[in-house]
Amino acid sequence: MNIEAKFAGLEVGYDVPAIPGMSEEEIQTPCLILDLDALERNIRKMGEYAKRHNMRHRAHGKMHKSVDVLRLQQELGGAIGVCCQKVSEAEAFARAGIKDVLVSNQVRDPAKIDRLARLPRYGARITVCVDDLANVAELSAAARKHDTTLECLVEIDCGAGRCGVNTAAEAVAIANTIAAAPGLKFTGVQAYQGAMQHLERYEDRKTKLDAAIAQVEEVIEALKKEGLEPELVSGGGTGSYYFESCSGVYNELQCGSYAFMDADYGQILDKNGNRIDKGEWENALFILTGVMSHAKPDKAICDAGLKARAGALRPDLQRARLVCRHPQGQGRDALAGIRTRQGILKTGPLPPLVARSVHSNRPNECPLKTQSGHRPIE
Amino acid sequence: MNIEAKFAGLEVGYDVPAIPGMSEEEIQTPCLILDLDALERNIRKMGEYAKRHNMRHRAHGKMHKSVDVLRLQQELGGAIGVCCQKVSEAEAFARAGIKDVLVSNQVRDPAKIDRLARLPRYGARITVCVDDLANVAELSAAARKHDTTLECLVEIDCGAGRCGVNTAAEAVAIANTIAAAPGLKFTGVQAYQGAMQHLERYEDRKTKLDAAIAQVEEVIEALKKEGLEPELVSGGGTGSYYFESCSGVYNELQCGSYAFMDADYGQILDKNGNRIDKGEWENALFILTGVMSHAKPDKAICDAGLKARAGALRPDLQRARLVCRHPQGQGRDALAGIRTRQGILKTGPLPPLVARSVHSNRPNECPLKTQSGHRPIE
Repeated sequence: MNIEAKFAGLEVGYDVPAIPGMSEEEIQTPCLILDLDALERNIRKMGEYAKRHNMRHRAHGKMHKSVDVLRLQQELGGAIGVCCQKVSEAEAFARAGIKDVLVSNQVRDPAKIDRLARLPRYGARITVCVDDLANVAELSAAARKHDTTLECLVEIDCGAGRCGVNTAAEAVAIANTIAAAPGLKFTGVQAYQGAMQHLERYEDRKTKLDAAIAQVEEVIEALKKEGLEPELVSGGGTGSYYFESCSGVYNELQCGSYAFMDADYGQILDKNGNRIDKGEWENALFILTGVMSHAKPDKAICDAGLKARAGALRPDLQRARLVCRHPQGQGRDALAGIRTRQGILKTGPLPPLVARSVHSNRPNECPLKTQSGHRPIE
Repeated sequence: MNIEAKFAGLEVGYDVPAIPGMSEEEIQTPCLILDLDALERNIRKMGEYAKRHNMRHRAHGKMHKSVDVLRLQQELGGAIGVCCQKVSEAEAFARAGIKDVLVSNQVRDPAKIDRLARLPRYGARITVCVDDLANVAELSAAARKHDTTLECLVEIDCGAGRCGVNTAAEAVAIANTIAAAPGLKFTGVQAYQGAMQHLERYEDRKTKLDAAIAQVEEVIEALKKEGLEPELVSGGGTGSYYFESCSGVYNELQCGSYAFMDADYGQILDKNGNRIDKGEWENALFILTGVMSHAKPDKAICDAGLKARAGALRPDLQRARLVCRHPQGQGRDALAGIRTRQGILKTGPLPPLVARSVHSNRPNECPLKTQSGHRPIE
């Protein structure tokens, strides 16, 4: 990619917030910043983990929706392909040349099924989840129409209470129907426990995953009895991948959030009781924001409000703590509130603050940089 | 605008969710839909109100960020121009030919001040808020550099506790400095009480606005004593515009949310105790979503989750109630929960549901349409 050509003619502020080579002070705020060094360290770490545990890692593309980031996950982290939640995402990845794409969701709308069934023509292996017998005939008809093969995972609801079947009997019935359907291939089982990923305590997450693993084992035994050995048993997220990896049941991980790490995931605790953004992973994505009003001595208003950070709608994430960094030392500020366009920093008595500040979306380690004397408070 | 040319070569689903002339059933979900009829009724209504009360209506552009919608507000609703929260928005409106643009915020970053000071060259009257003496010199220097005039409103903090000065003395000091600064013009007062707009009870909102009006009156008296009569006294939102309009103090409204109406604003009550989305305004913007899993008899999973509706992060908005519409009658469903990519509809025992559904972002009147027998509950 010719970076210079890509930015030619673009006006900073109006078209783009920054161009390559700019210093942080020149970036027009609010701006979402991806720290590529932190991203690459996260990607390599997950890649090494998956390799060491003989797991395929199918990186979750809904987290970044970026072919560029997915390619990094393949090149640096050995990801075997991508999973995504929507046909439109699958189209973007398949058309960009990604060769193994799973839609880790059901597709029921006729037009979307048709779009999905066309995708193998881009040279990609296309897999989709199924939890309803009626869906099998729909997928089969579309694959035959386009003379393609759609691979299918039967989805098991292993505790999240959303998509998926609850019993081994239902899973077997759907798998058998898939195996007999022209244009379809029974490839395995989707068993992602999405409801436990953000539980704070490691032991609470383990309890939920132990139950899921037992359920998946039962389904696999039932499938094997029917001669339907699954090639893929896929699941696992950033809050659980160590459980699936050591289960002896799963062979594919679907982690996504580890790569950028965020304020919500960051607060869950690892086996030793440490936040997972304090060692296991690094926060790589943050919002750069500038202070634009300091008319009151104990308050600074910055330019990143609700519209810049959807997650801030959650009350616990609104009150993120910030770490100040400035020439004279370090201290902490509280993000006291957030409005549609403004964040409010409770700052304590301060000298005039007219500079830009930086805060990330992780609560406990958000650098706040200023150009002029922003005195830290304790 | 040549609509056909605009959509030529675009692929439905991949490039756009729909093209003009499609029926609702053909739209690829999830899709944000703007009901133009409802929008135009809202716009005309606010326009007539403002005219009847001799108020200028400066429509708030942060709500829609759309030059097309703003033009409708000017043509059908008599809006005199736009206010917006950021320089980048002001740039978009000014470059599109909008002639009266207020940045209803402070601008402190040197690069943004420079961008702002260039905007009058597009033929627009450009106004900005000021709440800090130090900002006056910055704005003046930039206006002189570009040989333009920036008009300035002194911002009063009339209860929201964000930007703005608290006292008449501070306001007068800033206004005097603006009036004396080359390249700047003192134009008036920004007095938007943003913290009361979403209070549920009319009387609670009135109490807050009465206090704001008293404060603004005091500031205006002090300014007049200095020979600084404000040309504009600007403020007012969808939850308060009737107070400002009848105050005898304000002469400009900044309402924005009335035009689309939303789930959060919709739940505040008018003078008679009715929700403002039940008569005063109509919901014009909603999300079209499709059901993609119905493996469980009492639950349907639709394809609009958190990533499709940021507001759903608020617990009270997560549990929006939906009204079913289908050939056999009407009933209600509850949106029981929402995950990053999926909404969960608690539906009660149902026949197989494989069709698309429609729900809006307003809690109490969300049409849910299905193609096949979705039996209403209750």
